Formats: sequence, C-alpha cells, structure tokens
Amino acid sequence: MTNNQTSKWFDEYHKGVRYGLQGEILIDLKSEYQQITVFNSRRYGRALLLNGCWMTAELQEKNYHECLVHPALSSALQIKKGLIIGGGDGGTARECLRYQDIEQLDLVEIDEKVIEISQKYLPIIGGSAWKDPRLKINIQDGIEWTENTKENTYDFIIVDGSDPAGPAEGLFNESFFRNCKRSLRAGGIFAMQSESPESFLTIHLDTVRTIRKVFKYADPLYGWVPMYPSGWWSWTFAAMEGAHYLKPLPQRVDAISQDCKIWSAQWQKGAFQAIPAFIERALKASN
Amino acid sequence: MTNNQTSKWFDEYHKGVRYGLQGEILIDLKSEYQQITVFNSRRYGRALLLNGCWMTAELQEKNYHECLVHPALSSALQIKKGLIIGGGDGGTARECLRYQDIEQLDLVEIDEKVIEISQKYLPIIGGSAWKDPRLKINIQDGIEWTENTKENTYDFIIVDGSDPAGPAEGLFNESFFRNCKRSLRAGGIFAMQSESPESFLTIHLDTVRTIRKVFKYADPLYGWVPMYPSGWWSWTFAAMEGAHYLKPLPQRVDAISQDCKIWSAQWQKGAFQAIPAFIERALKASN
Repeated sequence: MTNNQTSKWFDEYHKGVRYGLQGEILIDLKSEYQQITVFNSRRYGRALLLNGCWMTAELQEKNYHECLVHPALSSALQIKKGLIIGGGDGGTARECLRYQDIEQLDLVEIDEKVIEISQKYLPIIGGSAWKDPRLKINIQDGIEWTENTKENTYDFIIVDGSDPAGPAEGLFNESFFRNCKRSLRAGGIFAMQSESPESFLTIHLDTVRTIRKVFKYADPLYGWVPMYPSGWWSWTFAAMEGAHYLKPLPQRVDAISQDCKIWSAQWQKGAFQAIPAFIERALKASN
Repeated sequence: MTNNQTSKWFDEYHKGVRYGLQGEILIDLKSEYQQITVFNSRRYGRALLLNGCWMTAELQEKNYHECLVHPALSSALQIKKGLIIGGGDGGTARECLRYQDIEQLDLVEIDEKVIEISQKYLPIIGGSAWKDPRLKINIQDGIEWTENTKENTYDFIIVDGSDPAGPAEGLFNESFFRNCKRSLRAGGIFAMQSESPESFLTIHLDTVRTIRKVFKYADPLYGWVPMYPSGWWSWTFAAMEGAHYLKPLPQRVDAISQDCKIWSAQWQKGAFQAIPAFIERALKASN
C-alpha cells in the first residue's frame, strides 16, 4: 500500500478482485440501457466504462480491436460487405475499414448514447471510421437485426459486445449464432469476443462450444487486455467450410501488418495454438 | 464502484494502476531484505507479497511456475543437475522435481525468511519439494553463487527472482548471465522470468536482448499471471548450441503434461510464436 491511496481511483470489482485506474471522471450518465462513464486515466488516456466495467481506453484499445478484427478480415474469402454488432466506440469499425476491399460495413449498436459519447470524448478510438462513407450506423438491437437479415448477406460478422449481462446477454445464445450463420456468405467468417478463460471460464467454454456446434469450425484465440478481468482475454472465430480463419491471406497481411501494435500473422498463429491445457481438456471433453 | 469498497482490500500500485484482492493479512514482517506479507485472499487462496508486490497465490501460481519450468526442463539435453536462483516459495522446485531424471536441485535463495514463511503459510506451493532429498537449499546471494560455480556444473539454470529493484536487481545484469552461461553444461538451458512486455517494457526488452547477446540463442515466451502488473507476463529461455528450448522431448512431455494446468507442448509452441508485433519490431531493430 502506498500513499497513492489518497488519490482518485476508479475500480472495477469482480469476484474478490479489483482493477483500478488513477484519474478523474469526465462524464457519467445513464442511458436507456446502461450507465456510461468516461474516465480520464493517468496511464491509458481516456477510458470508457459501461455499468462500471472497463470497456476500452485510448492506449489499450488495440490489444482488443486488432485481435477481434484481423484474424477474421485477413482470412475471409472476400470482405466486401461486413457487419459489426455492438462496437459503439468505433474501434472495431476503424480496424475493419483499413482494408480497402470493404465496400459496406454495417454497424448495429443498440445504445445510441455509446456512439455519441465515444464520438465526443474518445474520438481517437473511432478515428476516421466515423466519417468513412462505407460505414452505415444503425441504432438497433443486434439480435433483431440478424433475425431480419437475408441469407448470404455478409462476408464477415463481428460481435463486439460487452459481458453477457444486460443488453449483450442475447449475443451469447445459440439462436443468435444460427442467425449469424444464415446471414454469412460462403467463405465468410464469424468473429466474437469470448470473454476471459480465467475470470469467466464457464461463459468462455459455453461460448466456444455453442459457436462450434453452430458453425462446425470454430476456435478460440488468446491475448491480453490488461484492463479486463484477469487481463487474459479470448476471441473466437468460426467458419462453415473449414478452419480458414487459421490461414491469413498474404496480400492482406502485407497491407495491414505494418501499422499493427499486437497483430501479425505470426502472432495470430501462436495465439490460436497457445490454448491453456485446462481449456484444451475441457473443450475436448465436450466434443 | 460497489459497496465492496468497504471490505478489506490489499492493492499493488504500479504507474497509475492498482490490482487488489479482497481478504485479510495473515502475517506482515520485515526481513533483512524486504517486507514479507502473507494475505488470505477470497479469490485465489493464500498469497505472498514482497515489498507490497504480489508474488504468488495458491490458485494462481501454476500460471507462473509451469511456464518458467517446463519449456526448459522438457527440452534440455539432460536434466540431472539443476540450479534455481530465488524461488523461495518452492513452486519452481516442485515443478522441477516432477521430472524423475533430476538427481540434484540446488535452490539458492538470498532471504531465508521467504522460505520459512512459505513453508509455514503456503505449504501447498512447495508441496513435496521441501521434503525431497534431491533439493539442496542454500541461503546465499544467487549472484555470488554463480560467480563461484565451476564451469559445466548444471544442466539447467532457472532464475525465479522478483522485479529488478532490491535484492533481485543484479539478476538482470550481463555479468550474472555470463556466469550462468559458464556454469551451464553443453545442451543446457537457461530460463528466467523476464517481466511484463506491457508494464515493464524497457526491462523486458533489455533482458531479452542481453540474454540473447550472452547465450546467442534466446527467445521470450508470453503467458498470463493475472495478479502481476498488466496480467501479461514473459519468460525467456536461452541455450548455447541452438534454440533447442523450442523442441520439447516427447518422452518428457508425456510424463508431465497430464498434471499441468497451463503448459502443454502445443501451448509452449504457441506461446513462443505469439510475440506481439511491437515487441517483435523492437527486438529486430536491436539485432
């Protein structure tokens, strides 16, 4: 303990653990769906919290967004038309729009306030995405959106939601995954943040198992987001014809790698392989 | 923020970030070298802190010890005689002694109090190691020990020290690495915890670079220890003849895998490959 204790801290509490950043609250409001807070942290710049949980921060967001986007977009057969469910901070859209092949990117966010606050207080995270004519913002429930999407509409679908409590709960259900699969074109890839294998073990395993059941081919990949519970995070990728998310296309890799903080084709290969023994055993047992 | 705030928390502070566990202090004393605290945490069982920094906990220690020990011991040419510098909690010794090939394991810990407190309050971590006749405990400075070690003494050397401040500082120096190299037999492997690539970036890079300079072959591997700053940790492995730490021997893998929480031959392969792009670039630039 140090005398830093007297400074201002904002902590996220999770099962007897807390992770706190020093700084001050910039804005704190309640939207129709959740509590939205922007915090100016000394260490990671401005950060967004939803219902008191750290979602992203200017100097930490690439650890999350690159790992969610690039394994999918570097390897899908084509990437002309894509869908993001959630992702109201704009970081996922920004990473997607780095690919010139994209012609249309639908972003479906349930909470307009998240977009509004992110654009105003965290403009760096969405960056040029907000002004990109390829981005179509839809304020709607992502579950409803996929229910109403026609077959074979998207080349990729990325689910960038929060923990399965509150508005994101239905994003972890089999019926939602089935609608995503139906909406996906041949050669398409589905990508989803799939929680911490440490702090949300059951949800993590259930998510991987359910996605695998629906899509047939699905694998988790492991990385680090220090501000999330345990710092240890996962993203799960799925495809219908084979595990082609394991094989990034060299041309896209070349176009993207240089400006990545975490992601590279080598990193991706390792991150899929680095499945901890206890997770590997648990997933094998359920096959 | 929740009303958990009124419970008892112990936090480690690091550059505007804090990581806290809920529970109560069992013992808190000052040894000749450092402040030693044992904390009974609600989430991870009993935990050890040195100078207010989380070192290990009953339900988190395998994330660290398996990743430090098995890449080295599964791949060294022979593993009859080994050295651990630090490691006073006994966890590294316990993982090493799972290999039947080991005939003698020297543990050189500068602070007798760490061993005493660990044996008394955290007996699960050292486990059967403390009673294993192959373990020889030496209360001595590890730097002095390696200065006085004859050439070609050890099949493996594992450095299990704390951050490079206080008693562990000299364990990050080139002269120490040179003595380790001199003490290592042909086909031997050197292993060292090499800090967080996120929270201790400069130390991490300098450590990898210096070890690589001394041993010629050295590579970092990345994993997760949620209670350490950022949760993102690294261990660096080195050898003199080639990167044979990349090639675990099947017989040893078979003997060890079943009882591992994190480590498997596949995990190890992935963890060496999953080098984040910014680290890969920084290390390449210094070659």
